[in-house]
Amino acid sequence: MKKAVVCLSGGLDSSTCLAIAKDQGYACYALSFHYDQKHRTELEAAKRVATHFEVEDHRIVDLQDIAQLSVSALTDAEQDVPDYDGKVGVPTTYVPARNTIFLSIAMGWAETLGARAIFLGACKEDIGNYPDCRINFLDAFQHLMVNATDASSPIQQCQLITPLITLDKAETIQLGQSLGVDYSLTVSCYRADDKGRACGKCLSCKHRKQGFSRANVDDVTCYVDRA
Amino acid sequence: MKKAVVCLSGGLDSSTCLAIAKDQGYACYALSFHYDQKHRTELEAAKRVATHFEVEDHRIVDLQDIAQLSVSALTDAEQDVPDYDGKVGVPTTYVPARNTIFLSIAMGWAETLGARAIFLGACKEDIGNYPDCRINFLDAFQHLMVNATDASSPIQQCQLITPLITLDKAETIQLGQSLGVDYSLTVSCYRADDKGRACGKCLSCKHRKQGFSRANVDDVTCYVDRA
Repeated sequence: MKKAVVCLSGGLDSSTCLAIAKDQGYACYALSFHYDQKHRTELEAAKRVATHFEVEDHRIVDLQDIAQLSVSALTDAEQDVPDYDGKVGVPTTYVPARNTIFLSIAMGWAETLGARAIFLGACKEDIGNYPDCRINFLDAFQHLMVNATDASSPIQQCQLITPLITLDKAETIQLGQSLGVDYSLTVSCYRADDKGRACGKCLSCKHRKQGFSRANVDDVTCYVDRA
Repeated sequence: MKKAVVCLSGGLDSSTCLAIAKDQGYACYALSFHYDQKHRTELEAAKRVATHFEVEDHRIVDLQDIAQLSVSALTDAEQDVPDYDGKVGVPTTYVPARNTIFLSIAMGWAETLGARAIFLGACKEDIGNYPDCRINFLDAFQHLMVNATDASSPIQQCQLITPLITLDKAETIQLGQSLGVDYSLTVSCYRADDKGRACGKCLSCKHRKQGFSRANVDDVTCYVDRA
């Protein structure tokens, strides 16, 4: 059975990605990261989703030290995660090199497993904000994988797959529903509290809310103000 | 003053690299990694070398969890580091994606610092053994850096510099000596004991020994059998 490493934050996109990988017949190895993110409750969501989809293995890699090497509203105590403001450009929630670091570690595991694919939930909405979700980045990482490994390595045949990159949030939710994703298990909010309840106001909540609304699907997210 | 992130294992090559970066006028930020390597005494060497060259900052990033995702004689208790056997090809001491992971983290710090360079001690001897030291890999990582970051990011102007890639070990030692490297502070051995004493027999020791010999420089390495 072909294997895939699936980067799983525990949010809406990566959970959908895992469902897609399962649907495509991969034996799935889920990979999450503790990078001292304020919304580390997402890791509990990742565990729930990994269990729901009966992955072969789920690892949570401790990367807390990288928070000390960068400035980001997602990790700095002194810097609040802002409400969504509609601005274009790189938001303060950007974490320098985050996806490059995550994919590098995924590549190492994929090489050891002999995996044929690495799934990443980079999506259409991310492209405007996060440079390490753009297509030129994804292409450059695929190119790197081939060049970082020996000609005899299974990574030579390993594809970085980003099935959501052309889908908006509504399309992602519709696809995920058809594949059995239970979005009530997931946490997307950058300010989620320790019970996984969402603020409803940050960039991530905004995209998620819009997605449910446009998909005409009941928003199963647990919001703080409805608790 | 222009800044550089210098990947510093504490070995001969990376210590020489730091000396070169200093000589080129960079304010140096040294970066080491604890990836559960058996020879973690090299991290003590890295501290000594960082102190010797009065770096601006030295961080040791805890990456112990990645050892659980890969198979390597450098990290697995069940697998011994072999004596040098002269074989060509990827040795059992290869750690999947190691340099990609290290450089990704270096890139994140470099972006935060606004560094103009990342120094890596990949050297001529490594090329035959380690795919993530080859020139096509280094070129691919430079390409990735540009594509992983926003057009406004300082990483767009940041160079991955590998000054040893065309030098053999003897030339590296001669250059390092001229720049004030004290090689007695460094540890290269894959099987170094907790006092930093080298086995003299592994791949890394073999290259180092040959280097001192060919450079006609006294080998200041502390070997176990001479202790």
